[in-house]
Amino acid sequence: MITRMSSLFLRTLREDPADAEVPSHKLLVRAGYVRRVAPGVYSWLPLGLRVLRRIEAIVRAEMDAMGAQEIQFPALLPREPYEATNRWTEYGPNLFRLKDRKGGDYLLGPTHEELFTLTVKGEYASYKDYPVSLYQIQNKYRDEARPRAGILRGREFLMKDSYSFDLTDEGLAASYGAHRATYVRIFDRLGLKYVIVKATSGAMGGSASEEFLAEVPIGEDTFVRSTASDYAANVEAVVTTAPPARDVADLPEAQVHHTPGTPTIETLVDFLNQAGLGREFTAADTLKNILFKTRKPGAKEWELLAVGLPGDREVDTKRLEASLEPAEVAVLEEADFAKHPFLVKGYIGPRALLDNGVRYLVDPRVVTGTAWVTGADKGDHHVVDLVAGRDFTPDGTIEAAEVREGDPAPDGAGTLVAARGIEIGHVFQLGRKYAEALGLTALGPDSKPVTITMGSYGIGVSRLVAVIAEQYHDAAGLVWPRNVAPADVHVVIAGKEETLRAAGEKLAEELHAQGVEVLLDDRTASPGVKFKDAELIGVPTIVVVGRGLANGVLEVKDRATDTRTEVPVDEVAAHVVGLVRG
Amino acid sequence: MITRMSSLFLRTLREDPADAEVPSHKLLVRAGYVRRVAPGVYSWLPLGLRVLRRIEAIVRAEMDAMGAQEIQFPALLPREPYEATNRWTEYGPNLFRLKDRKGGDYLLGPTHEELFTLTVKGEYASYKDYPVSLYQIQNKYRDEARPRAGILRGREFLMKDSYSFDLTDEGLAASYGAHRATYVRIFDRLGLKYVIVKATSGAMGGSASEEFLAEVPIGEDTFVRSTASDYAANVEAVVTTAPPARDVADLPEAQVHHTPGTPTIETLVDFLNQAGLGREFTAADTLKNILFKTRKPGAKEWELLAVGLPGDREVDTKRLEASLEPAEVAVLEEADFAKHPFLVKGYIGPRALLDNGVRYLVDPRVVTGTAWVTGADKGDHHVVDLVAGRDFTPDGTIEAAEVREGDPAPDGAGTLVAARGIEIGHVFQLGRKYAEALGLTALGPDSKPVTITMGSYGIGVSRLVAVIAEQYHDAAGLVWPRNVAPADVHVVIAGKEETLRAAGEKLAEELHAQGVEVLLDDRTASPGVKFKDAELIGVPTIVVVGRGLANGVLEVKDRATDTRTEVPVDEVAAHVVGLVRG
Repeated sequence: MITRMSSLFLRTLREDPADAEVPSHKLLVRAGYVRRVAPGVYSWLPLGLRVLRRIEAIVRAEMDAMGAQEIQFPALLPREPYEATNRWTEYGPNLFRLKDRKGGDYLLGPTHEELFTLTVKGEYASYKDYPVSLYQIQNKYRDEARPRAGILRGREFLMKDSYSFDLTDEGLAASYGAHRATYVRIFDRLGLKYVIVKATSGAMGGSASEEFLAEVPIGEDTFVRSTASDYAANVEAVVTTAPPARDVADLPEAQVHHTPGTPTIETLVDFLNQAGLGREFTAADTLKNILFKTRKPGAKEWELLAVGLPGDREVDTKRLEASLEPAEVAVLEEADFAKHPFLVKGYIGPRALLDNGVRYLVDPRVVTGTAWVTGADKGDHHVVDLVAGRDFTPDGTIEAAEVREGDPAPDGAGTLVAARGIEIGHVFQLGRKYAEALGLTALGPDSKPVTITMGSYGIGVSRLVAVIAEQYHDAAGLVWPRNVAPADVHVVIAGKEETLRAAGEKLAEELHAQGVEVLLDDRTASPGVKFKDAELIGVPTIVVVGRGLANGVLEVKDRATDTRTEVPVDEVAAHVVGLVRG
Repeated sequence: MITRMSSLFLRTLREDPADAEVPSHKLLVRAGYVRRVAPGVYSWLPLGLRVLRRIEAIVRAEMDAMGAQEIQFPALLPREPYEATNRWTEYGPNLFRLKDRKGGDYLLGPTHEELFTLTVKGEYASYKDYPVSLYQIQNKYRDEARPRAGILRGREFLMKDSYSFDLTDEGLAASYGAHRATYVRIFDRLGLKYVIVKATSGAMGGSASEEFLAEVPIGEDTFVRSTASDYAANVEAVVTTAPPARDVADLPEAQVHHTPGTPTIETLVDFLNQAGLGREFTAADTLKNILFKTRKPGAKEWELLAVGLPGDREVDTKRLEASLEPAEVAVLEEADFAKHPFLVKGYIGPRALLDNGVRYLVDPRVVTGTAWVTGADKGDHHVVDLVAGRDFTPDGTIEAAEVREGDPAPDGAGTLVAARGIEIGHVFQLGRKYAEALGLTALGPDSKPVTITMGSYGIGVSRLVAVIAEQYHDAAGLVWPRNVAPADVHVVIAGKEETLRAAGEKLAEELHAQGVEVLLDDRTASPGVKFKDAELIGVPTIVVVGRGLANGVLEVKDRATDTRTEVPVDEVAAHVVGLVRG
C-alpha cells in the first residue's frame, strides 16, 4: 500500500503536549499517533492504529501457534457472575459500573475470569474435553485512580487475556510453561528489552506467578535483579535470605539498660556506643517493632499486628501489603495507642507484645540465636542481647522490610541491584479459585467430578505501543522496530521539481508492487519540514529523493543509526526490499 | 490452517435454544457460533469470530480501497461533546450512561458524530486539507428497549461507521456517491440479497438518505417497491402521489345533512348510499379528521394537531412520527377533548378546526378541487361536497396515511408492493448540523471560514453475521457463502479405520499447504453425528473420507446444492482448491 502524506489524516506537532511527561506520550501525540479524549481515554489516528494492529497481529499469530483458540466476550457484562466471585464488591472504585434501562446492574469488564470459567462450564462436561486454552484480544476498562502517561496506563485499553483449563496441577504447569514460552517469542519479535520477574499473585490468588517487565527508566514498577545470575523479581516477591539459626547455649543473658533520650534508632545506637558495653553497635543490631492494624475482607474489627525488623531497615508498604493480602493494613493511630497502654511508644519490645496477645511477625533475618537490642516496654529503657528463640518466640515471619541494592540475591548468586520497568505481560497459575466459585468441574473417568485448575495470562496490547516507543526513540522522534512500524519505508520527495516527484512516485509504485508498505511524502512542504516529520514519525528506512537524483543516486537512511547510503536510483527498490525482508 | 474438531472449542446443540425465534438465532447458537451473556449481549465462540472477522476484513478492504482512512475512537466517552449537540439528553433511555470514580459523566458511544467532528476540527484548519473520509470498525452500545433475535439487534454490536467531510454540497454529493458505490461492492461480495431504499433522515437531521435493506421474511422494517421500476423506499419515506388540482368553478355547493347514528366511516357510507343523493359513496370520498397533540423538543406545552385523510386510510404511526420529528406526538385523550368543546367526536370538520386555530394538516391527496364528505362539527351531522381550496384551506399537507400495496409508485412506474427487510447499511447526507454545533470550519482561500458539510455512513458488521445466516440456511443448518465461511472446506473422517484417518490427515495437510482453511473432523464420533454437524456448521464444501476410499475415491459435497461428486483420491486436493479459488 502507498500512503500519501498529501491526504493522510495526520498533522504533526512541533510542541510537546502540556499534559505529557514521559517520552512516549510526548512523541506519540506529536507524531500524530494518538489523541486524548478524556483522562486515560485515547483515540487512535491512522499511524497509531497501524502500529497497534501490527502488534495485535504478532500476539494473535503466536497465540494461535501455541494452540490457544480465539473467542470474544462482550465488554458490557452483567453483575451476577462477578457477584458470585465477590469481585463486584472487591474491585472497589476501579470498576466502571452502570445500570441499564430496566435498572439491571452491569459493569465494563476489567478482566474476564468469570466469563471464561462460565463459558467453558457451558460447553464442556467430560475429562476428555480438557485441556483447553482460550484467549481474546479486547478492550478492557478500569477506572484507574491515576491514569497517566497517555496510553501507558489508560482507563480503556486493549488487552490479550487468555486462560488455560486443566484437570491436574501438572497439566496447569505445562499450560503455564507453554504460555510463558509464547510470551518470550512475542516480546522477542516485538524487539522489547524485558526481564521476567517472580511476582506475588496479589488479589487474584493462586501460586506460580511471573511478570514480564519492560525495562524503561520511567517505569512505575521497581524490580531487582542479581548481579551474577538471571534472577529478577518484583520487589514484593523478593524472599529475604535468612542467616542459619544459631545455637543459643553460650549467648550472654539479656539485660535491661536505662537508655534515657533514645526514642529513635539513631539516638539509641549513639547511646549504646558511648555506654561502654565493650562492643560496637549499629542500627542492624537493633530490633524495631512497628505497630499496624489489619482487617480481613468482610471483617468488622481491626486486629493489632506488630512487625519486628532490624533497625537499619524501613518497612516497604507495598511488600507489607502484598504479604498480608487480601487483608487491609493501616498504621496504628494515636487513638489506638491510647487504648493499649502496654504499647510504650519508642520502647516497644517483644515481651509486651507477646504477653498481651498481639500478633507478632518478624523479618526472616530474626532467626533463632540472633541477639537484639530492643525496647524494654518502659520509657527510656531498652534490653540488650534479647535472643530470638530463647527470650521470645514470634508468631512467624513476614516479608515487610525494604529490599536494598547490595542485598544477597535469593538464589545465592550475587547481590541485588534495582531497576525500573513497566509490566507488559503476566503469566500466572490461578488454580481452582474461580472453578470452585463458579462450579467448573469435569466428569472424570471414574464418573467423579474433577475441579478444573486454571491459568491466567495477560498482555497489555495497547500499552505495548507506548512501551516500544519508550525503548525506541531519540531526541528527534520515534524509531520503530521494523516488525511494528506503521510503514516499511518512508519515501521523501525533497523538492518541488517534477523530476523528483516523478522519481518518488515511480519508486513508491515499484516498492508497492513488491508488497512493501510505503509512506510517501508527496506534500508541497519544504524538504526541511519533511525531514523533521520523517524523524518524528520514525519509519525505520527513509529514502530521500533529492539532489542526488541528478547524479543518478538516492539517499537511503537508517532511522535508528542515522547511517546514510547513496544507492543508484535503479537499485533502490531492490535495496529497500532487502532491508525490509531482512 | 487446519482446525481439528477433536480439540476445537465447539459443542453443537441438537435443540433450539428456548429464547430463539428466528432461524439465524437458532442456528448460530446450535452450531456453536455465539452464546448469550445477557439480553442483547453475546460472546463469539471460535467459528463465529472467524465469520465476523472475514466480514470485517471485506468491509475494511473496500473502505480502504475507496480512500477512507481508518481510525479508532474509544467506546467510553465523556459527556461534554454530546452535551454540546444535545444528544446526551435527546438519546433518552437508549444511551448507556455511567459515572467515573470522580463523579464525571460518561457514556458508551452509540454513534460517534461528535468525536469525528471534533477530531477533524483538532487536526485540520485550511480548505486545502479537505475533503477527507474517516472510518472506524468498533463496538457500539445502545440500550435497546427490545433487544431481539440474538445478534440481529444487540445492545453491544460491531459497527463500521464513517464520515465524510467536504467544503461544498457538490463535494458531499460526491463523497456520498463514493460511499454508496462502496456499500454496493461490500454487500455484493458478501453475497447478500438487498435493496437500496429511500429513507427519511430521522432524528439525525440532514437531506439525502438511503438504507440498504437485506430482504428477509423476519425483517422488522417494512418497505415498498415498485412492480415496474427499481424504486424502493422505507414506508416512512414514501411520498404520496397526489392527483392534479381541479377547477372549483362548477362544483356543487357544500350541503349539511342530518346523518343520525353515523359515528364511524362505515356507518356514514352506508347511510349516504341509502339517502338517495343520486350517487354512490365509498370510504375514499370521506375526509376523516384525527386529533393529536404534539410537543417540540424542550417545549413544555402540547399543541393540538388535526390530521385530515381519506376515510379509507388509517394513520400509520411511524409515518406520522417521521413527518413530525423531532417533535413528540400523542393521540388526544378524553380529557383533552373535554377542554375543547368545539371538537365534536365523530363529527369533527375542517371548519371548527380552522375557526379555532387548530393546526390542520391533510393528506397530499386532499388537493384543491377535491370534494369531501366530512364532519359538520355537530352531533349526527355531516357536510357533503365540502371542497378543498374553496370551502377550507388546510395549513399544509402531511405524510401520515398508511401506504398500501397497489398504491401508485411515486416514480410513476407501476404500483407498490410490500416486503420485509433488515437494515444492514445506511448512507446519508448529514449536512452541517454537527459542524455548526461543534464549530468545524475551514479557512477558505479568501481567508473566510467555510462550515464543513458531512456525510454519515454505517454498516452493522456483527448484525451481518445474522443477516447472512438468515439468507443462507436450510432445514439442516447454516449454508455460508464462500467469502465469509468459517473454513473453506470441511473434511469429515467418516469411520474409525486407520486408513480413513491417515487419508483425512493427508488431505488436510495437502490443502493446508495450498493455503486452504480446513476444518477437519477427526473426532471419535460416529459418521452420522459428524455429517449432521457438518450440515449444521455450514462450510460450503464437505469432503467425506469414507467407504469410497477403498475404491480410490472421496465424496465432495456442495453444502448449498447437496450435489455429491466422487473424485479420485489423488485429485481431491486440486479439485477443492479449484472450488475455493472459484
